[in-house]
Amino acid sequence: MTKLLRSWVESANSATTQFPLNNLPYGVFSHDGGKPTCGVAIGDQVLNVAAMETDGVLSFEGTLSTGSWNAFMALGKTAWSDLRATLTKLLSEGADQGIAKYLVPASDVTMHMPFTVTEYTDFYAGKHHAFNVGTMFRGPENALPPNWLHIPIGYNGRASSVVLSGTPVVRPNGQLKGPDDTAPRFGPSQRFDIELEMGAIVGQPSNGPISVSEAFDNIFGFVLLNDWSARDIQAWEYQPLGPFQAKATATTISPWIVTAAALEPFRTSTPEREKPLLPYLQEPAPMLYDIALEVGLAPEGKGETIITRTNYSEMYYSAAQQLAHHTSCGCPMRVGDLLGSGTISGPTKERRGSLLELSWGGKEPFTLDTGETRSFIADGDTLTLRGQAKGDGYLVGFGDCVGQILPARALPA
Amino acid sequence: MTKLLRSWVESANSATTQFPLNNLPYGVFSHDGGKPTCGVAIGDQVLNVAAMETDGVLSFEGTLSTGSWNAFMALGKTAWSDLRATLTKLLSEGADQGIAKYLVPASDVTMHMPFTVTEYTDFYAGKHHAFNVGTMFRGPENALPPNWLHIPIGYNGRASSVVLSGTPVVRPNGQLKGPDDTAPRFGPSQRFDIELEMGAIVGQPSNGPISVSEAFDNIFGFVLLNDWSARDIQAWEYQPLGPFQAKATATTISPWIVTAAALEPFRTSTPEREKPLLPYLQEPAPMLYDIALEVGLAPEGKGETIITRTNYSEMYYSAAQQLAHHTSCGCPMRVGDLLGSGTISGPTKERRGSLLELSWGGKEPFTLDTGETRSFIADGDTLTLRGQAKGDGYLVGFGDCVGQILPARALPA
Repeated sequence: MTKLLRSWVESANSATTQFPLNNLPYGVFSHDGGKPTCGVAIGDQVLNVAAMETDGVLSFEGTLSTGSWNAFMALGKTAWSDLRATLTKLLSEGADQGIAKYLVPASDVTMHMPFTVTEYTDFYAGKHHAFNVGTMFRGPENALPPNWLHIPIGYNGRASSVVLSGTPVVRPNGQLKGPDDTAPRFGPSQRFDIELEMGAIVGQPSNGPISVSEAFDNIFGFVLLNDWSARDIQAWEYQPLGPFQAKATATTISPWIVTAAALEPFRTSTPEREKPLLPYLQEPAPMLYDIALEVGLAPEGKGETIITRTNYSEMYYSAAQQLAHHTSCGCPMRVGDLLGSGTISGPTKERRGSLLELSWGGKEPFTLDTGETRSFIADGDTLTLRGQAKGDGYLVGFGDCVGQILPARALPA
Repeated sequence: MTKLLRSWVESANSATTQFPLNNLPYGVFSHDGGKPTCGVAIGDQVLNVAAMETDGVLSFEGTLSTGSWNAFMALGKTAWSDLRATLTKLLSEGADQGIAKYLVPASDVTMHMPFTVTEYTDFYAGKHHAFNVGTMFRGPENALPPNWLHIPIGYNGRASSVVLSGTPVVRPNGQLKGPDDTAPRFGPSQRFDIELEMGAIVGQPSNGPISVSEAFDNIFGFVLLNDWSARDIQAWEYQPLGPFQAKATATTISPWIVTAAALEPFRTSTPEREKPLLPYLQEPAPMLYDIALEVGLAPEGKGETIITRTNYSEMYYSAAQQLAHHTSCGCPMRVGDLLGSGTISGPTKERRGSLLELSWGGKEPFTLDTGETRSFIADGDTLTLRGQAKGDGYLVGFGDCVGQILPARALPA
């Protein structure tokens, strides 16, 4: 296992920072009312790489001055590794500290969307989650759909609804119909939920089918992703063409993109195949990552309870497999496409990645440390996703992925 | 019914042109190797409105010089009506012909995508189509899903796969599994199909639920839309989260955007409701359009057979209802979002909008004028969608929406 790379930014050498020199995640920040600017997290500081490019310290065709990482991603893999290597060198212990003037305390900045989401696809590729949900609806014998072990099942989501961590989320209204109701009504979702996911960011375009290896190479990095889901809206709308309004209120991502390069030491294999995959989906090497994940729930004005702990390595399909499948029909992919992993549940009850599973469809409400119970999200609740890969004496994190639920809009008269 | 508006561009006064002065559709063209430029069709000419803006004859904040109609759409309704009124005046019979120098023969231009598709949503809102497909799979008693008469069912499609008329379409490969197969295989779709649709273009953004009236006002115009569909890929993949790779190979649109203003004389009501709609979906006025539609199929190197004739007025839900529903959960909409109507089938066999229906799932192949039969599309076939609203002595058309099918890519070794 790789060891901590020491930096002259002292806070980056802590065993508890999410942002040691090994990480160098990419975000967009503003400071003192300035415009959104590309930055890199190091310890408790943010490095203003846009200003460094303006001053000629870095040179990436002006892409670092665009207020988004899309243009830099489009430059390709050589630029990706060049920037990482340059920053690693400049920030290493013993290096000249001339770039210290480009550091801004993280506590003084406002974060913005790190990239423009071109299109958003969400998958259903966690086997424990699919099994749990299937069991609730169809019983354990028929829990997994017949295609599940052959296809990384996905659907297109709504890019316009992807928001940055910290953005409040208004509980959606929608069509609701209980099993005994004769007709649907329109009102606030009563079963509003999270989905704990990782988001993979496509950093290079493709214009036809690509292999799993090519797909792996085209992924720039990862964010934490919370796919807010209205289970009751979904139950009534999703047959026959899948979820639509149930998934379009908001999807929250973490402020920092952790690059595939930073996650390289944490690569791990997908689980053993229960049925052989078709050749176009077979992985030539481990392409999943060992990233510990947790979700905290804090009722309004109260302390947080950690409601689940799981790991990205629980996925049955890697992001590379999902991306390869996504292109199999010839579908063009573009820089900034975001792929949600699917809900990441573990094999045991306390490792489930959604309230639907934690409360078993609302039948088994769970108790918070405050003594309150929850089946689904209550107004005012704040949900926080956290993730970290654990190295030898260091962590690699994404920053918190947070959202508070506000009450539904009043219905039109 | 409104009459032909006469123009000094003589070809625009023909009873058979798709582009009389009443139409003035918006497209993007290039000429003599120049860059893509905003243009307006009039008779057999294209008016270079970008050059007119450069010369100060038009003034729309430079939006006409962007090579796409998105920026102009973003200006809003006042700009939309100003440009239409100005062009109508400048091109009217009797007006000074000083702008004749901005006309280019349509036969000399190359067309390009008229707008950048921000996100693409496809609906399933034609009742005859839903009933036909449902009958094939579940029998006539259970043909319509229980939610169908309450919700304009939609799913998110893939904007990156939307292409301009004339772009060849490569038959997709994908996972296929027959009912008796023990495992899926990967290969070319054997049931590749069209869906005859209209596409509505969102011309104004919204950031929360909007009413049907507001939705109607936010729609800039319409294109013909062919949602190419791999029925066999879809059959295996679509449960439980809907179509994905089956619909992501390509969606072809017509070269010209016909504005809502040009279609105003052709407004018509959706059919009588079989069950009352919830208030948020009720239309305050007729919001559908009477547009005659047809599809031609030409085998490679042979003549075309018209395989279906139908009308946009057959839809159960209007684009305004679909857009209002799309926003009901708070989903933000953006300028350039494209909404496919869903397949437009009529009540009789010869009015069906897909080969799936025309051949009744492949069980009843139909015969072309060439004597050949078809159940689904053969390699080399060219499919052409046409649409026109019929005024008193004039037509309003979109230009042909064409695609030829090329053989599938060779599979990787």
